[in-house]
Amino acid sequence: MKPCVIPTIDRPDPEVIKALAGHGVATVHEAMGRQGLLNPAMRPIKEGWSICGPAVTSLNHVGDNLMVHAALDVCQPGDVLVITTTVPSTCGMVGELVARQAQVRGVAGIIIEGGARDVADLRRLDLPIWSTAISAAGTVKATPGWVNVPVVCCGVQIRPGDVIVADDDGVVVVPRERAAEVAEAAAARTSREEGTRAKIMAGELTVDLHGLRQYLADKGVTWTTPK
Amino acid sequence: MKPCVIPTIDRPDPEVIKALAGHGVATVHEAMGRQGLLNPAMRPIKEGWSICGPAVTSLNHVGDNLMVHAALDVCQPGDVLVITTTVPSTCGMVGELVARQAQVRGVAGIIIEGGARDVADLRRLDLPIWSTAISAAGTVKATPGWVNVPVVCCGVQIRPGDVIVADDDGVVVVPRERAAEVAEAAAARTSREEGTRAKIMAGELTVDLHGLRQYLADKGVTWTTPK
Amino acid sequence: MKPCVIPTIDRPDPEVIKALAGHGVATVHEAMGRQGLLNPAMRPIKEGWSICGPAVTSLNHVGDNLMVHAALDVCQPGDVLVITTTVPSTCGMVGELVARQAQVRGVAGIIIEGGARDVADLRRLDLPIWSTAISAAGTVKATPGWVNVPVVCCGVQIRPGDVIVADDDGVVVVPRERAAEVAEAAAARTSREEGTRAKIMAGELTVDLHGLRQYLADKGVTWTTPK
Amino acid sequence: MKPCVIPTIDRPDPEVIKALAGHGVATVHEAMGRQGLLNPAMRPIKEGWSICGPAVTSLNHVGDNLMVHAALDVCQPGDVLVITTTVPSTCGMVGELVARQAQVRGVAGIIIEGGARDVADLRRLDLPIWSTAISAAGTVKATPGWVNVPVVCCGVQIRPGDVIVADDDGVVVVPRERAAEVAEAAAARTSREEGTRAKIMAGELTVDLHGLRQYLADKGVTWTTPK
Amino acid sequence: MKPCVIPTIDRPDPEVIKALAGHGVATVHEAMGRQGLLNPAMRPIKEGWSICGPAVTSLNHVGDNLMVHAALDVCQPGDVLVITTTVPSTCGMVGELVARQAQVRGVAGIIIEGGARDVADLRRLDLPIWSTAISAAGTVKATPGWVNVPVVCCGVQIRPGDVIVADDDGVVVVPRERAAEVAEAAAARTSREEGTRAKIMAGELTVDLHGLRQYLADKGVTWTTPK
Amino acid sequence: MKPCVIPTIDRPDPEVIKALAGHGVATVHEAMGRQGLLNPAMRPIKEGWSICGPAVTSLNHVGDNLMVHAALDVCQPGDVLVITTTVPSTCGMVGELVARQAQVRGVAGIIIEGGARDVADLRRLDLPIWSTAISAAGTVKATPGWVNVPVVCCGVQIRPGDVIVADDDGVVVVPRERAAEVAEAAAARTSREEGTRAKIMAGELTVDLHGLRQYLADKGVTWTTPK
Repeated sequence: MKPCVIPTIDRPDPEVIKALAGHGVATVHEAMGRQGLLNPAMRPIKEGWSICGPAVTSLNHVGDNLMVHAALDVCQPGDVLVITTTVPSTCGMVGELVARQAQVRGVAGIIIEGGARDVADLRRLDLPIWSTAISAAGTVKATPGWVNVPVVCCGVQIRPGDVIVADDDGVVVVPRERAAEVAEAAAARTSREEGTRAKIMAGELTVDLHGLRQYLADKGVTWTTPK
Repeated sequence: MKPCVIPTIDRPDPEVIKALAGHGVATVHEAMGRQGLLNPAMRPIKEGWSICGPAVTSLNHVGDNLMVHAALDVCQPGDVLVITTTVPSTCGMVGELVARQAQVRGVAGIIIEGGARDVADLRRLDLPIWSTAISAAGTVKATPGWVNVPVVCCGVQIRPGDVIVADDDGVVVVPRERAAEVAEAAAARTSREEGTRAKIMAGELTVDLHGLRQYLADKGVTWTTPK
Repeated sequence: MKPCVIPTIDRPDPEVIKALAGHGVATVHEAMGRQGLLNPAMRPIKEGWSICGPAVTSLNHVGDNLMVHAALDVCQPGDVLVITTTVPSTCGMVGELVARQAQVRGVAGIIIEGGARDVADLRRLDLPIWSTAISAAGTVKATPGWVNVPVVCCGVQIRPGDVIVADDDGVVVVPRERAAEVAEAAAARTSREEGTRAKIMAGELTVDLHGLRQYLADKGVTWTTPK
Repeated sequence: MKPCVIPTIDRPDPEVIKALAGHGVATVHEAMGRQGLLNPAMRPIKEGWSICGPAVTSLNHVGDNLMVHAALDVCQPGDVLVITTTVPSTCGMVGELVARQAQVRGVAGIIIEGGARDVADLRRLDLPIWSTAISAAGTVKATPGWVNVPVVCCGVQIRPGDVIVADDDGVVVVPRERAAEVAEAAAARTSREEGTRAKIMAGELTVDLHGLRQYLADKGVTWTTPK
Repeated sequence: MKPCVIPTIDRPDPEVIKALAGHGVATVHEAMGRQGLLNPAMRPIKEGWSICGPAVTSLNHVGDNLMVHAALDVCQPGDVLVITTTVPSTCGMVGELVARQAQVRGVAGIIIEGGARDVADLRRLDLPIWSTAISAAGTVKATPGWVNVPVVCCGVQIRPGDVIVADDDGVVVVPRERAAEVAEAAAARTSREEGTRAKIMAGELTVDLHGLRQYLADKGVTWTTPK
Repeated sequence: MKPCVIPTIDRPDPEVIKALAGHGVATVHEAMGRQGLLNPAMRPIKEGWSICGPAVTSLNHVGDNLMVHAALDVCQPGDVLVITTTVPSTCGMVGELVARQAQVRGVAGIIIEGGARDVADLRRLDLPIWSTAISAAGTVKATPGWVNVPVVCCGVQIRPGDVIVADDDGVVVVPRERAAEVAEAAAARTSREEGTRAKIMAGELTVDLHGLRQYLADKGVTWTTPK
């Protein structure tokens, strides 16, 4: 596919985004049937952030962040900018000046398969950023790439407009067309867990609450020291 | 060995645990003759924790945390729950609901060769946890494994009742039967280091305090610029 | 080369150190033409540190920190102690007693290709330390090595007296003889970026400020959805 | 998406497969605009194999190869079986008995993001296999997954019917709908390279053949020793 | 435990060794209930080797192969020499002169958590060697360690006299006291697989032979394209 | 330093090259005092090669092999072409057409911190190549870099004219000015080892030949089973 910037994407209904935003990455991942989780190399550069929004994607050549600059032009408030490269590297794709533009535009956060730099500034700016590396290594702005084409990031496909949920556990991607259904399943799961939590606080154990003691007994596992 | 849950283990004398608890991982590791240290992939998910207690072990199949639930049933106050899998992975073996049960039971901390999830909650709970990964990846509860059999965790064998010492440096394992002797050696080492520390604060150098200047001279090493 | 301790090194003009110290690692790395950056495995053990000073180098045998003790003898206030080994490992080369000696001597910070230990103490001491690992693994003090010979650290050559700049982004090395020129280029870059930052805060984008929209158009990249 | 086996896929025109099969992975990757290459962890378990065929995909739970068995049921002669898991691991997903079924069915080769086992047998069978690991670790056959849904394998999306080209360099994926165009571009590239090869054998250099000497001169790079 | 050389170990019945030797690593690993497999970083330095014999263990300090020399003194014909270090490294623990001594003594093979060197010579000697690295890095012979104490090697505990089975798939350890039982289970498994293989060669599929088609149907998985 | 091509380098005396060429990497590394060894990620792409020659260095931008083409212009028969990049990556820096030019020029071999591609062709050409990766990933020819400046490759500094020795064990670098001395030390070491080898073939052990039995006894290590 020839290099291009696709300026317009289908964003999911803001109500659905809001519904998903109430849940953590672990819950959303479970609610999707344990799919869509970026591999654990993707980490926040600061603790305590939690975001949810539609993906704008930026696919770049290795050592080159030209299409990050182009992507900022098409970001809207609440978007999550997802940055990848054609070949993996730790080069610093985003620094303070890029992050500041994102913040001015109202971007919800940035996901980078690659490096972040100026991280002391980035932490102060408090624009949520997840990356696979921290590195001061600079990039050129030379070879055209793509904005808003489907990309693969940390082992998961992300299409423009898919919903990105990210927190201290990492990042999960919800396909746009499944967002409403997943939000519902996550809500059901959360309320179920609240019941379980109350019982646990009262001293009960999941080995009983989930019937696992019986399940293990049925499989021939006993609670005794073997002779 | 067939899957089993061994409910009763030999715990070391609480006085010995108390004696060991006064020392850091680095000191205990030295006092044992530089053995028993888990490899450095094992890291705390929050800074500042320091624990010491007997190990309860849980050996699980990959992608399955069934035996973590079973292990909680046999934990006693002060125990350290050690979780491993038959094949390494980053799956999230412990989340908030498991950690909460451990906390209700008075568990001192959890060591996971694998992933922790719900880490924002885990940090708030303040139950000390060390793991080799942070990942929201969920697990099934399907295949029986083992509770309280000897396991290998990050390159070190851990038997139920062995003493786990963990802090910001990582995790070290003291075989149950050596715990008293190691506590004594650690105390001796700590008091020796106090003397050295005082001299260092007064401006002396270890190169002199340990006789290394002479040692190097004896080996033909000089303090001059080669011509 | 035979093991040796070279006590005297050429340090750059303190004014040049001061000029470089005003800039972050990312800026200095750019000002040098994107060279001299240690690979991103080199990380601070605590956030928020920023140092700049001439390198004193210590080259050790694997699992042995004898020459770290010797290097402390030749450090002067403001120096940065750079520690490497002949074979890579995660062994703990520096602990609290070594760090304390460095602090008494006025050392600006320590860079370790290898492990740091007693990290809870090290963070409290607040002597800036970057390392490639955290590990309690102890070392012997047995085989002579070298102090103040050129070393390679995380993929970059460092000679005694070269200037080390380190912050949350990592570590960059400026060859002694280029320090003045690089400080000047960094200052020029910083002031250029200040202009750009002001425009960004006012809502402009780098895609326009750097002429990238036109550049992409010239390369045939359009801002439209492909049919 | 619920677990399923999709038995029928759109395979590309056999003539297009034949046209692509004449080219190596490096050439096809270039002809696609440097896209579609699986990351270099994907390696053949034996040297000298070269295959080209449409993908049948099998997505499995970690430590479980149930859907590999199901996928064999829908493979046709010339297909390439692509095996991935929801969470990365090195478990042995394919051994001799699976490979033998593939061979009986006329499968062209197998691509595994995960482990191969019985590799001595597999090499003797001479059914081409690429994998990211060699490991005897067995799997269960317990949790349903997916056959012939789009998967991500070593950083690249693969849809059923996409063309897999694999040789000693690794594996590249050509989207089904681009296969004809890429075959043509690869042929053009190959014939261009033949001309260059002849000149190189006659003693010419690419620095002249590609005009790079002039290009470098234009950029101010000279062929002289700096004073 | 103080450094020591334990010269005498309990070796299993030679008949049991012979019975185990008939099976590959993958079969033995399955016959043990999927336990005992060294992690896949342990690889043969040449294809086609297959060994089985009792372990003699050598535990060394990092960068030091003193106890490899000592271990050769207590090896008997048919033994497998298992070499590990207290801290992981890639140093070359075994070269041609050590391998030659092993060969003169009738050692069956060598397993090294660490590096092998002189590998061109080692391949010519044809003494089977598995290692986690190939590296010319030399070692000293300085610090006493242990011969014939229990060690952990690539994630598995190995005690002197335990049976090592190694081939192109990797290395598996059978506890001495389980060797007879595992040999029997392996034989049963092998003969079961022979029946399956014959049916596969005749065109049957494991999805039918193992009843997986029905199992998947029971779980609601259908063989149709979703609408 | 500004991009440049330095066409002329100081090559060591051919007699010295010849003297070094008689020894393996492990011997040369020992003869240098265990220095100069590239880390073990640097591996030959085929077994059985052994080369020795002066380095011509090529330093490239990541994802760009422009300066490889330029370096071929200044290579002379017997030279070893050493290729690195400013930021590590696995991109394929050398393919068949580059290797063929090297072969026409009489280059002894190529060392690549990065990827090789067209490896099936490269193995047939039989031009010795060591690399840290095999990858079909292509590169651009866009940004000027450097030919014949000092580089760091796999953790070791290499200056133009330094002697590269490479075989199945990996790669070692001998500084030009030390080449004669190292050749002599290597020869002494080789002849010493020949004496040892003869005794080993006659059944003696290094534990006796090197006096290690006594050394261990002096350190309190006994050859008895502890009670």
